[in-house]
Formats: sequence, structure tokens, C-alpha cells
Amino acid sequence: MAEGSKRQARKIPEATVARLPIYLRSLLEAAGDGLPTISSERLAELSGFNAAKVRKDLSYLGSYGTRGVGYDVEYLQYQMSRELGLTKDWHVVIAGLGNLGHALANYGGFGDRGFPVAALVDADPRVVGTDINGITVRHIDELDAIAAESQIDIGIIATPASAAQEVADRMIAAGVSSILNFAPTIVSVPAEVSLRKVDLAVELQILSFYQQRRGGAGSTSSLPPETAAAPPAG
Amino acid sequence: MAEGSKRQARKIPEATVARLPIYLRSLLEAAGDGLPTISSERLAELSGFNAAKVRKDLSYLGSYGTRGVGYDVEYLQYQMSRELGLTKDWHVVIAGLGNLGHALANYGGFGDRGFPVAALVDADPRVVGTDINGITVRHIDELDAIAAESQIDIGIIATPASAAQEVADRMIAAGVSSILNFAPTIVSVPAEVSLRKVDLAVELQILSFYQQRRGGAGSTSSLPPETAAAPPAG
Repeated sequence: MAEGSKRQARKIPEATVARLPIYLRSLLEAAGDGLPTISSERLAELSGFNAAKVRKDLSYLGSYGTRGVGYDVEYLQYQMSRELGLTKDWHVVIAGLGNLGHALANYGGFGDRGFPVAALVDADPRVVGTDINGITVRHIDELDAIAAESQIDIGIIATPASAAQEVADRMIAAGVSSILNFAPTIVSVPAEVSLRKVDLAVELQILSFYQQRRGGAGSTSSLPPETAAAPPAG
Repeated sequence: MAEGSKRQARKIPEATVARLPIYLRSLLEAAGDGLPTISSERLAELSGFNAAKVRKDLSYLGSYGTRGVGYDVEYLQYQMSRELGLTKDWHVVIAGLGNLGHALANYGGFGDRGFPVAALVDADPRVVGTDINGITVRHIDELDAIAAESQIDIGIIATPASAAQEVADRMIAAGVSSILNFAPTIVSVPAEVSLRKVDLAVELQILSFYQQRRGGAGSTSSLPPETAAAPPAG
């Protein structure tokens, strides 16, 4: 069995996978120090996890460090980038160009990190044909054609909640197998599709819970209580 | 002891707090069905948790439902909004008006949900004085004055990683006690300050891990491996 296929076959726990990007970010910070090696204690400190967990997680990558020396920073960084699939570009389509989708299309940070935005789609005829950050918005009905033209790896859903499931289904039908959902609703996908979720309102509402407990005054809301947490319109 | 103070004193586990906004969202969806009551099973289905967990979580709010009938949708919704502090507006300051901060300032979805953006601050003299979505960007040195003018409850950090800790410290010094950090780095805050973190690149990198494992082709990156995951410049 070749080295490469052995690496592909190793099973890394989901929770470890979720920590790898954070270790990588910490390694990039550590690289600024100019030191060629890093201890698990230092990596733990930078990443906010404990050293035993760091060592266990890195062992899944086949990295065990050297006693009294630590891990080779450059090699570990390379190994993580490779493991995370960051040595390639992954093409992104953003569906839904309301406020949030528009903001994400303009973000710019995706391309810099290896996730170039390859296409934008929307269902609203007033939005289709407009230009955002140099990309023309196309109709969502063209998703199959778009996927055939340029390999689309990751679909970002930034539609209203009511459209999210249909958009996910259409992305999957077009061959997209990773989805990042920003719509404030649950989306169901088949087991072979990866799904991650970001809900900015949830984060803010968790903060407001603690803010209120802390005795924060807040301001009189302009909205009646029963609509104060209504999902965004776009 | 008054009813109100009893409610304030009850201890709700952190994991339950994090699920409350998701229940509330599900309730708002359920309200669309027009039914006056909802079972824990239906709420579980809508929110993606199991019914036993839903019942346990709601019991922390003092809601036990009625056997064979379920929970009163409108009252539960009111109770959750109140518990989450959504019957008031919470003022937000966004620090760092690079791509992401700009995008967040333009998002619009915050104000609709009871989190109006009250101020924008940056350290770059080319950005200070510009107008974004009707708000003039002020210098971060004015943070104390801004907090004195208009109660600021939540600080959003959208600066580069290198500036994030200093910005957090300055927000806290100005009296901000809840922080949502978008900068790709760990920020330390005192125990009495609430901190939540959103890292879009981490979400994408987790997806690319699975995409690669699945045998996704990706595209040849224009970046060498060791810089493929460098933090964004802005």
C-alpha cells in the first residue's frame, strides 16, 4: 500500500478535524517567532486547548514530535495544510445575494484562503445580471450549467430560511458535496454531503442572554417581543 | 422574593443557552403553521435535537407543557425572547472596517434582529471619516467617548488577527461586556466578559478536509502550501 493511500485511509475523529484549522492558524502565528520547533505546551497555549489533547490530535496526523525538542513547525504546517486539503483551491458558489450574500461575495477573504468564489446565483430577476465584485449573478436555474463549466466544490447558502432546503437540494443535484449554510434554518442533506452551519443571530442572541443576566440595561426595543427575533427578510 | 428576581437567579447551563436561539427560531417557523400549541417531539424535529433534550431545556425556563397538548407556542416564544434578552435592543459597535467589517456593517440583518449597529471604529486614517451604510467611521481612540454617548453593549471584532487582543482590551476598558470575535485568533477576556467566536475560514477548512477525503479534485492552488492558509490581510 502506498504512503498516500495509507494517509487517505486513516480515520480522524470529527472533533479533531474541527480543531486542525485552529492548530494551523496557531502554527502560522508561531512561525512569526522564527523558531524552527514548537512544543505541544506552546501550541496548546496558542490554540486554547490542553497539551494532552494537542498531542493526541497530532498523533492522528502521524506526528509525534521529538522528546525535549517538540514538533518541526514547517513540516507540521505543511502536513496540516495537506491534511486539510489546503494545497488546492476549492471553488465556491454563493446562492442568495441579499445583504448577507452580497457581503460574503464582497468579503474577499475567501479567495485569499484558497476558496475562490467561482459563481453567484439568485432567483430574483432584479438581482440576476447584476455585477458583484467582478462576478455577474446568474439565475439559480443555471446551477447545473455553472457546475459543468467550472468545478464547484462548496456551496454557500445565504438565502432566506424558506428557500434554503430547495437551494441545498439543487446544489447537491448539481454535484456540490460540501455546503456552508448561513440561512437561519435546519437544512437536511444526504450522508455523503458535508454540511456546516453559521448563524450570526444565534451568536448575538447567546451574548444578549448573558448581557441581560449581567444586568445590562439595553434599550427599549422598537419591536414587540413576539417579533423581536423574527428571521431576517433577506 | 419577587417572581422577576427568581427568574434572574435561576442557573441555565451554557449548552442550553446555546440551544435557546435555535428553539426560538423553530418556534417562529412553527408559528407559521397557525397551531396554538406544539409538542416537544415537533419542536425537536424542527430544531434538530431530541425530544427529551427539548423537554429538559424548556424545564429550565419553568415551562413543562401540558401532557397530550404540548406547549403554548405564543407564550413559549415570549418566554424565550424575554429569557434571551430580545425584548430590548442591544447596541453594537463594529471595530475594523476591512472587507469583513465592511460586509458586516452593510449586512443589515443585525438591526432587524434587535442588534442595531450604533458605531463603527477603525485605526486606519484612510478609513476613519468614511461613511458606511449611513454611519461615519470614527477613530478607535474615540471608543470611550462613543460608549459614553450611546450605551454600547456588544463589540464585534473584525480586525486583522494581530490587532484583535488590543481592540478587545480597549472595548472592555470602554465598558463593553460582550464580544463577538471574527478575527482569526484567540482573544483573552476577563471572566465577567462574554466572548463568542466566528471563524469563516475554519468552517471552510473543515469542509475542504472532507471534500478532499471524498476524493474531490480541487484545483491547483496558486499559493505554495505553506502560505495557503495564511490569515487574511484585512
